[in-house]
Amino acid sequence: MDERIREHARVLVEWSARVERGDDVVVSVGPEAHELAAAVYERLGEAGANVVTTYDSGELTRAYLRAHGDEFETPDHELALYEHADVVLSLGGGRNTSATADVPGEARQAYATASTPVREARMDTRWVSTQHPTRSLAQQAGMAYGEYCDFAYAAILRDWAALADEMARMKELLDDGSEVRLVKEDTDLTMSVEGRTAVNSAASVDYDSHNLPSGEVFTAPYATEGKVFFDVPMTLHGKRVQDVHLTFEDGEVVDYAAESNEAVLSDILSTDEGARRLGELGIGMNRGIDRFTDNILFDEKMGDTVHLALGRAYDSTLPEGETGNESAVHVDMITDVSEDSRLEVDGEVVQRNGRFRWEDGFEA
Amino acid sequence: MDERIREHARVLVEWSARVERGDDVVVSVGPEAHELAAAVYERLGEAGANVVTTYDSGELTRAYLRAHGDEFETPDHELALYEHADVVLSLGGGRNTSATADVPGEARQAYATASTPVREARMDTRWVSTQHPTRSLAQQAGMAYGEYCDFAYAAILRDWAALADEMARMKELLDDGSEVRLVKEDTDLTMSVEGRTAVNSAASVDYDSHNLPSGEVFTAPYATEGKVFFDVPMTLHGKRVQDVHLTFEDGEVVDYAAESNEAVLSDILSTDEGARRLGELGIGMNRGIDRFTDNILFDEKMGDTVHLALGRAYDSTLPEGETGNESAVHVDMITDVSEDSRLEVDGEVVQRNGRFRWEDGFEA
Repeated sequence: MDERIREHARVLVEWSARVERGDDVVVSVGPEAHELAAAVYERLGEAGANVVTTYDSGELTRAYLRAHGDEFETPDHELALYEHADVVLSLGGGRNTSATADVPGEARQAYATASTPVREARMDTRWVSTQHPTRSLAQQAGMAYGEYCDFAYAAILRDWAALADEMARMKELLDDGSEVRLVKEDTDLTMSVEGRTAVNSAASVDYDSHNLPSGEVFTAPYATEGKVFFDVPMTLHGKRVQDVHLTFEDGEVVDYAAESNEAVLSDILSTDEGARRLGELGIGMNRGIDRFTDNILFDEKMGDTVHLALGRAYDSTLPEGETGNESAVHVDMITDVSEDSRLEVDGEVVQRNGRFRWEDGFEA
Repeated sequence: MDERIREHARVLVEWSARVERGDDVVVSVGPEAHELAAAVYERLGEAGANVVTTYDSGELTRAYLRAHGDEFETPDHELALYEHADVVLSLGGGRNTSATADVPGEARQAYATASTPVREARMDTRWVSTQHPTRSLAQQAGMAYGEYCDFAYAAILRDWAALADEMARMKELLDDGSEVRLVKEDTDLTMSVEGRTAVNSAASVDYDSHNLPSGEVFTAPYATEGKVFFDVPMTLHGKRVQDVHLTFEDGEVVDYAAESNEAVLSDILSTDEGARRLGELGIGMNRGIDRFTDNILFDEKMGDTVHLALGRAYDSTLPEGETGNESAVHVDMITDVSEDSRLEVDGEVVQRNGRFRWEDGFEA
């Protein structure tokens, strides 16, 4: 076994999920995540956890949803499983990122709605999602398999404690600040973050962070004004959308354009009122992720990028009891800030050309 | 997809488990049973069942058990899952039938003991175990993969309703009879079946039968006298045991011999008192199973064979409240009755040279 698989398992079980003796753990295993699962089971055995293994296959979901009508019940047995679980580890790894492409939207939506209590019970655990590097993900990234493995482990096997400390600086700046401004090519955008709390997403439940890899600091901005250019490509509704321009007034998108598949952007913006406002401002700080791989779990944490999401805000960024922007969608869009750019908080430059103010080479 | 896979799924869901709309179903999928699982999900979707998929891998079990100490708790989340389930479908299919060979017996035993409530909850559902034909099972049988698939589907895709009707005749003979006698080479054995109820194991929960394939009628004999020769080989504790001779007096084994690995037989017989008495007499009636494949799920149902098990009797064969032979073991041994043999119930021949009394060519 590649020693990096064992290390991935160690980070997941110890740093990310903080598994302890006696924890009731559900491990969800993708068809191609078997090797990572074996390494995780070794760690869970050592930790003295109790384990149930579920199988997460897009092909089985497809077969089931296509054959089913669209009247679903909440599955009581699945709900009972998660209500009694302390930890859920999701080890993604499929054979085809398009495995459910021909499932009708209605069936997908009806099933998701019936499963809401299950999803909520799962979110009440110390859950963490990660991905085993697979040939299917390598293909999606346009990379050879060995090359992709090197990329994935560079992103996953970081010194997370050190990164958490560095990200704490960015969190403090955002928490103390009122207005964030982003300036780069075709971009001059201001957002309010007053009263919002940034999340130091350090790939651990102890940081309210549920993805491995992670490595971003995010908050929920509002009162957005100005224009922004997203030069990192993205796949939305199965289509490649590239070079998006948005213009905001009074917090809402008033103008938009995209170099390719603009209609998809148009669809998203017309979903509901909240889809025209921002739900997230994220600062990508994982420099192990050094390129776009068409996989949002990785892309949005890329070092020297900033992402903004149209749609729903995460509760963790809001004061207790306050609701942020609401929407049925949450669509992340990414812009490269490694060159000719600056990020300001209350008029003070905190990142310029990819360098943070606490780094060597930073120019105020 | 091989059309036989779809047919296997249909038999499993409809005939075996009798799945109905709204049933909470747990499907356990082996690493190589993915294709069968996809066919089963299509059926479960059509039936309108609710599904949770678990992953059953010997390699994960091995990793977990070897790393764990031997102090296990009952996993509450797993117990909750099965307590809320109506149906459990187990789709076996591994990559290596020796996947757990190096797990220490103590860990295996301690885990099994802690999991007893889970196992009992599973047995309280409409559970059915089947196997997807795999290269690993083909290898164990000493067969090419295509050849093995033909064999497996001949065993699984039977006219089960017709076989159930035929087996009902054998059940009636055993239920009405007092004494069974088996005569063949080196064999003249009598057993009492008075007061016991035979199970018509027709691969359906409606027949109290939980294996697919099945195709045997079995009961719990006692007061065994005489000698018996088992000429079908078997793998016990990982070793090939061949040509076993047993001699019974007053229901107990008083003499034994085996052509190979006699020590394994000796170990089994000394497990406990019940290990020296019979717990099962089974009549194999599935003629789709026409050869030994070193897989007990199939072997014991082979047409024109009789099997006897040392050890534990199944409750389903006993009058309500009565306990049969008790033992920590249940070890099936098989004898070929296709030639030069006869099976009698109360002195009347019911099977001679593999022909049953209701069949053409039967000689009383």
